[in-house]
Amino acid sequence: MSAQPNLKHAPRLNEAAAAELAALLGERFTTSPSVRAHHGKDESSFAPVPPEGVAFAHSTDEVSAIVKICARHKIPVIAYGTGTSLEGHLFAVEGGITIDLSQMDKVLRVSADDLDVTVEAGVTRKRLNEHIRDTGLFFPIDPGADASLGGMAATRASGTNAVRYGTMRENVLGLTVVLADGRAIRTAKRARKSSAGYDLTRLFVGSEGTLGIITEITLRLYGIPEAISAAVCPFPTLEGAVRTVIETIQSGVPIARIEFLDPLMMRAVNRYSKLDYPESFTLFFEFHGSTSGVAEQVATVEALAQGHGAENFRWASKPEERSKLWQARHDAYFAGLQLRPGCRAISTDVCVPISRLADCILETHADIAKVSFPVPIVGHVGDGNFHLLCAIDPDSESERKEAEALNERMVMRALAMDGTCTGEHGVGLGKMDFLIAEHGEAVSVMRQIKRALDPDNILNPGKILRV
Amino acid sequence: MSAQPNLKHAPRLNEAAAAELAALLGERFTTSPSVRAHHGKDESSFAPVPPEGVAFAHSTDEVSAIVKICARHKIPVIAYGTGTSLEGHLFAVEGGITIDLSQMDKVLRVSADDLDVTVEAGVTRKRLNEHIRDTGLFFPIDPGADASLGGMAATRASGTNAVRYGTMRENVLGLTVVLADGRAIRTAKRARKSSAGYDLTRLFVGSEGTLGIITEITLRLYGIPEAISAAVCPFPTLEGAVRTVIETIQSGVPIARIEFLDPLMMRAVNRYSKLDYPESFTLFFEFHGSTSGVAEQVATVEALAQGHGAENFRWASKPEERSKLWQARHDAYFAGLQLRPGCRAISTDVCVPISRLADCILETHADIAKVSFPVPIVGHVGDGNFHLLCAIDPDSESERKEAEALNERMVMRALAMDGTCTGEHGVGLGKMDFLIAEHGEAVSVMRQIKRALDPDNILNPGKILRV
Repeated sequence: MSAQPNLKHAPRLNEAAAAELAALLGERFTTSPSVRAHHGKDESSFAPVPPEGVAFAHSTDEVSAIVKICARHKIPVIAYGTGTSLEGHLFAVEGGITIDLSQMDKVLRVSADDLDVTVEAGVTRKRLNEHIRDTGLFFPIDPGADASLGGMAATRASGTNAVRYGTMRENVLGLTVVLADGRAIRTAKRARKSSAGYDLTRLFVGSEGTLGIITEITLRLYGIPEAISAAVCPFPTLEGAVRTVIETIQSGVPIARIEFLDPLMMRAVNRYSKLDYPESFTLFFEFHGSTSGVAEQVATVEALAQGHGAENFRWASKPEERSKLWQARHDAYFAGLQLRPGCRAISTDVCVPISRLADCILETHADIAKVSFPVPIVGHVGDGNFHLLCAIDPDSESERKEAEALNERMVMRALAMDGTCTGEHGVGLGKMDFLIAEHGEAVSVMRQIKRALDPDNILNPGKILRV
Repeated sequence: MSAQPNLKHAPRLNEAAAAELAALLGERFTTSPSVRAHHGKDESSFAPVPPEGVAFAHSTDEVSAIVKICARHKIPVIAYGTGTSLEGHLFAVEGGITIDLSQMDKVLRVSADDLDVTVEAGVTRKRLNEHIRDTGLFFPIDPGADASLGGMAATRASGTNAVRYGTMRENVLGLTVVLADGRAIRTAKRARKSSAGYDLTRLFVGSEGTLGIITEITLRLYGIPEAISAAVCPFPTLEGAVRTVIETIQSGVPIARIEFLDPLMMRAVNRYSKLDYPESFTLFFEFHGSTSGVAEQVATVEALAQGHGAENFRWASKPEERSKLWQARHDAYFAGLQLRPGCRAISTDVCVPISRLADCILETHADIAKVSFPVPIVGHVGDGNFHLLCAIDPDSESERKEAEALNERMVMRALAMDGTCTGEHGVGLGKMDFLIAEHGEAVSVMRQIKRALDPDNILNPGKILRV
């Protein structure tokens, strides 16, 4: 949420390059204004910045060929999956073209024995889970949006299941990546662990298309648990809710999800999903395991919650009750928007060590009281990650500034608590200054790597780092 | 295990630099032959290559100051923890000095709420576990040797517990690293997850001192499980043992350890530890969880084992029985050496996708029959990782060559099965050619990163990559 992008760049796409791209791709390369406009926006609140052309790729070889043309002409190249990023990651702030990978949507192989799968970058997480439904396996990472797996890898996405299953950092086993000069590499073989050289997989995960374009991904899968159960529990105090989270994690309960909603978000959820939950600080839980293991987990967590004043621990083991509960959680974003019809949401995203979570949320809660628009809170608290949903008037510059200032105070508070400016959304355009505040001198190492791998700065320039 | 190091370098340490180091460190900088000799060997079978001097550092600031002196004089710098590496990682093949970090042995902070700890690089894993014994927490990574945590991070170590707890890749939350020019950076704050920029933590983990010198490490900790149980189970066939492993992993049993020993290794273990286990293909298991959870895990795995012909599933829940069983497993290396008194061991280290593990071990087992020395097998099979212990005559050049050829065939077999040339030992000197065979063009990206971060090639030169 820093300042709007500066657009003083000259056109970068020239006629010769456009002709080469058209010769390579036919109608799959276009400069149509409507297609460009569609590729110049995401789910952030920034004003769109369309690319100068859009190339729809069908294979790693095609991505290579496209990048080679762009490298020769020094034209910026931006990878695009589903357009669900939240920090302006795919805006063409320095011009150039977008490579749309959504038609690279094949599941290339599934191994039930190895619990892994290789997909093209355009496969979305829901499509992957539909594809493997009959295998008894599933892919757990769930960032909310039905994002492409390439985009999820590029932003190091996570979401509600990360407390048990990790983030994209832990679940990507290997990548095929097209580099700035068009060469394609594979970052790793399929062994579960390796000490063979620098960890290029983890370097490209989270690099937001600035070091290479991810075209294929090998991912870990998990057996669908024998039993799944869910629960909702209101707390008289925020501290009680957060202490319950800490003790749950410490006790070694292998909890799959722990989500926090504040009273305002609970009011929004009740209204939107026609529910009648108490409108207090609330935790949503999900438990995965064997039938008896889940029963034991539920009993442990219920006892911990009661120790912090919770009186009404409602649990749901039937799939339809569970779905209703989690659908309500998943709809929290839309529910929050309905608190103020016609508003636009700005979503924040800090993550702190769990010992500081109560302080961070309490201080932020007090800070929210000072702003002039509704700000419900929701969090993946098992990881120390939470979001504010700033429901601002889209036409009000002053509200936007208020939201930016609120976000900045929240990020600085998180950094002072040894936390991060972004738990899962990424840096994009919006958090480049905060990245420096967070990492200091280490940012210069990131810059050295960027310059070494992309000396002409054509890969998603103007994101993460000012090179 | 490639050719012995080439030692045609000219002296790199000059008098001016030695005087500056002595002024900085006093007697903690030495060129004493015996100290140098001690720092020029590890647990590999390569002939030692001592450094030209050894500096004992007491702080990150001192490491910075040492590296600044060396950078100015372009003198190679090698980090040293406990000297337990297995591929010649710390040999001064291009001369220069060693920085011994073993006196940086302070546990800097422990957070029971956050389940994390920050240590200086010289703290060993056993010392860490002693230090935190009263907190109810433990650090699970166990590579066998009582290695320093800095060394374990630098080689991306793992060991018997990785199937449940992951490797150093998953358990390092952040690092303090001194770069080639002496600047110190911190790679991450303490949040459990972050999408803030390039993953420098994972880049330095496994870089074997070639990109920076790790001086402090923040690590994940885990609650000591309520219940721990262990079991030993012999199988009539290798396939039966490996199918039991695959089904255990697939069933979602959160097993803590699954170790494989072949009949020759079982014979060695029986002799060395005075035990009477059947001398067949054998799995050692360890289960962590709640009391009822562990009982359920044991029952599940026992049923799976019986489905593959196992008849004698012996389990041990009492601490003393369990210790005896795991002590026997931990002593396997020494037991293997006793198969041939006076021998020297060369340890190999491949890791394959688990679906290929039976094939890989079977083909390797057949291959072993052709060599002229004993070769017991032991493996962390839950991860697809296994080792041969080549018990060669230390004076026989022909046996060394036979072992190298056996290793090369095994690595190539693993790579053909989409596996890795090193699951946990690292590249060092011994696997530089195999790294190229494994990663192909991706090695050029590693080289670009190395050149960008260490343009004068002073950080552990001649390891991992030929720059």
